[in-house]
Amino acid sequence: MNILVAHGGGPTPVMNSSLRGVIEGARAHGSKGRIYAARFGAEGILKGDLMDLTDLGEDQVRRLSQTPASAIGSCRRKLSEKDYPAVLECMREHDIQCLLYNGGNDSMDTCHKLSELAKASGRELYVMGIPKTIDNDLDVTDHCPGYGSAARFAAVAAAEIGADASALPIHVVVMEVMGRNAGWLTAAASLGSEISGCEMITLLPERPLDLKAFLPEVEKRYAGGKGLLVAVSEGVCDLAGNPLADSGIVDGFGHKVPGGAAQKLSEIIMQELGIKSRSEKPGLLGRACMAYVSERDREEAYQVGYLAVQAALQGKSGSMIAMEVSRSPRYHVDYIETPLALVANKEKKFPVEWIRGFDIEEGFKEYALPLMGEALPVYTRLR
Amino acid sequence: MNILVAHGGGPTPVMNSSLRGVIEGARAHGSKGRIYAARFGAEGILKGDLMDLTDLGEDQVRRLSQTPASAIGSCRRKLSEKDYPAVLECMREHDIQCLLYNGGNDSMDTCHKLSELAKASGRELYVMGIPKTIDNDLDVTDHCPGYGSAARFAAVAAAEIGADASALPIHVVVMEVMGRNAGWLTAAASLGSEISGCEMITLLPERPLDLKAFLPEVEKRYAGGKGLLVAVSEGVCDLAGNPLADSGIVDGFGHKVPGGAAQKLSEIIMQELGIKSRSEKPGLLGRACMAYVSERDREEAYQVGYLAVQAALQGKSGSMIAMEVSRSPRYHVDYIETPLALVANKEKKFPVEWIRGFDIEEGFKEYALPLMGEALPVYTRLR
Repeated sequence: MNILVAHGGGPTPVMNSSLRGVIEGARAHGSKGRIYAARFGAEGILKGDLMDLTDLGEDQVRRLSQTPASAIGSCRRKLSEKDYPAVLECMREHDIQCLLYNGGNDSMDTCHKLSELAKASGRELYVMGIPKTIDNDLDVTDHCPGYGSAARFAAVAAAEIGADASALPIHVVVMEVMGRNAGWLTAAASLGSEISGCEMITLLPERPLDLKAFLPEVEKRYAGGKGLLVAVSEGVCDLAGNPLADSGIVDGFGHKVPGGAAQKLSEIIMQELGIKSRSEKPGLLGRACMAYVSERDREEAYQVGYLAVQAALQGKSGSMIAMEVSRSPRYHVDYIETPLALVANKEKKFPVEWIRGFDIEEGFKEYALPLMGEALPVYTRLR
Repeated sequence: MNILVAHGGGPTPVMNSSLRGVIEGARAHGSKGRIYAARFGAEGILKGDLMDLTDLGEDQVRRLSQTPASAIGSCRRKLSEKDYPAVLECMREHDIQCLLYNGGNDSMDTCHKLSELAKASGRELYVMGIPKTIDNDLDVTDHCPGYGSAARFAAVAAAEIGADASALPIHVVVMEVMGRNAGWLTAAASLGSEISGCEMITLLPERPLDLKAFLPEVEKRYAGGKGLLVAVSEGVCDLAGNPLADSGIVDGFGHKVPGGAAQKLSEIIMQELGIKSRSEKPGLLGRACMAYVSERDREEAYQVGYLAVQAALQGKSGSMIAMEVSRSPRYHVDYIETPLALVANKEKKFPVEWIRGFDIEEGFKEYALPLMGEALPVYTRLR
C-alpha cells in the first residue's frame, strides 16, 4: 500500500520525530509500497506535489529527530468541499491507500473531512490523524506531542531570563509566550521562578487582564529587589475582551495572529509606574528550539506517528492516536485510537481552577512536569 | 590575602564560569584569606555589601558553570572620583588586598581607575581585570569570553527560526540580535542559513540601513520560496544615523538602550512590500541561554578568572587577562596580561571588509567558528 504523510499548521520541536515514526513504522510493518510526503501540507496534496521518501537513508531518517520545524513543509490551508476533487485526483494519481495527517485542531478537522470523503468515494483509502500542537489545546488526549518540549522551553527560558532580570534588577522584564487562546505554555513559564529565584507574574489568556489589579502587583513584587519577570501569553485580552496587541495579520485558517503583547505591557509599565521595563519575544524559537526538547515528548511524538501508520496499514480509518496517562504511582501512557469527530475543532482551555490571581497552582506542576522530560536545571543561587 | 570579586555590566552565559575560576584559582594558590563577592557589583562595593564565598561547597562552585547571568549580581554604575572614599573604606573594612573586576569596556575603565586609585592610596591593593562581553567589542583581546556562547546561540537560534520560516514560508521573519554598536553577534546569526537552508539577510550596525536597497532584496530573496529570515542588530541606524528604534531607556552608563528594531523593520516590510512579516526578539535569552554555551568559551572564561586571581595573589596589578589566538594549524590560545589603560573605553567594531552587501564574508566564519565550540547542528533537509 502506498502511504502519504502531510503536515498541517505550525511546527513543533518533535513534529519530525512523528515523521520518523511514520517512516520507521511503515518499514517495520514490511510495507512494500511507496512512502510519499506532501510538500507544504495540504498545498502539496492539491498540487500533487509529493516527495518520495521511500528510499531515504537510515541516518537521514534518524536525524529527523534532531531537526526543527517541518522537514517536509506545512501550511495553514483549510480544505473545503471544492478542494475534494483535487485531493482525490492526487490519491488516484499516486495510488495512495494510507493518508496520515499530522496537525492540531484545524488539521484534525481537515483529516476528519478527508476520512469521510474517503468513505463516500468508495476508494480504498485509510485516513489516520497524528496529533501535534505546542499549545496543548487538543481535546480528548491527556496532552499533545509538542507541548512537553515547548513547555520545557518556556520554563527554562523564563528561568534564564529571570536569572538575568534578578542579577541586574534595573527593569521589569516582560516575556511573551506562545499559545493563542490557551494558557498551557504560559503556565509552564511560571515554573521558571523556582529555578531562578526571580519573582514572576503569569498572565494567561483564560483570564482578562485587569490593569487596576496588575499594576499594583508589579510595583509590589518589583520592590522586593529580586527582579521581576512577567510572563504574558500572546493572546491576553483586556477587560473588554480585546487583545492587548495583535500583529495585524490574519492567518490561512482565518484566525487573527497575535503578537506584541509583551512590548505593549512593557510600555504600560513604564508609563503608569515609571519603572523601566523591557520586553522579550522568543517567538518562533518557542516551537523550534531543539536544545530543550523533552525526551519523553520526543518518544511520544515518535510513537503516535508509528502507531498511526500501522493502524492505517491494517485498514483502520477515521481516528487519531490520543494519549491516556496515569501519573501515579509512576508515569504511564496508553495510546488510544480516538474517532476524529470527537477531536476536530474542539479547544481544551487551561483549567481556571489552576489559576490563582497572578500565580499558577501546584496541581498544574504535577500535570506538566512529567511531560517536560528530565529534571529541570538547578542553579547556584547566592543572593 | 583577602580577595574581592565584582561583576559589572550585562551578564554572559559564562560569567559565572569566570567566578568559579576565581574561587578555584584562589583555593589552588593556597590562599588563606577570605573570598568576598560584591553584591550587585560596584553598588555592593559602595555600600560595603559583600558576600563571603570562602566556604562555598565544591558542588555549588562547580554548578556555577551551569548557572546563567551573574550569581553575585551586577550593575551598570560607573564609578567616579567622588566614590573613591567609599571604595577605599570598603577595602579597609574588609581588609581586601586583591580586587578582581569582571566586565566589558566600561567596567575595564572602572577597573583601571581603581588600580590607579590603589597605587595613589599607598594601600597594598592589587587590581586585575577579567574580560567579558557577549558583544565581543573589547579591544586588544582576540575575542572576549561570553562571545563564543552568545554567537553559538545567535547561529543556532537563526537556524531554528529559519527552519520554521522555510517550513511555513508565509511571512518574512525578522529576528533582533543583541550587540549595541558592534555587529559580531548578528554576523554569527548569518551562519544559521547554512544549517537551515533558509534564505537570510544580515543587517549590522556598522552599516547604515538603506531601505531603497534593502526592500528590493527582501522581495527578491523571499520570492525564492525557501523562506526568508532577516537578522537585524538591535543597534542598526538609518542613513541619517538615527537608530531604527530605541526603547526610550538610558542605562546607568548613560547609553541609550536599543530595542524594537525587528518589530519596526517588520512593519516596514508589511507596509512597503505588502508581504506578511513577523518579528522575534529573543533578547536577554541571547546572553542567558545555557543550552548553547560553547564548551571552549566556558573553559576560556574559567581560565581568565583563574589566571586573574593568581596574578593578583602574586602582587600583580593594573592588567586584564587578554587572549592571543592562533587558528592554524589548530586553535591555540595564550593568555596575556595586558595593561588596563590599553583596553579601557575602546570599542572593537566588526571589520567592514567582512561585510558584503547583506551577507557576511567567509573570513568571519574562520574567525568565529572555533569560538563557538563543538560542531554546529546538522538537519535532515528534504525540500
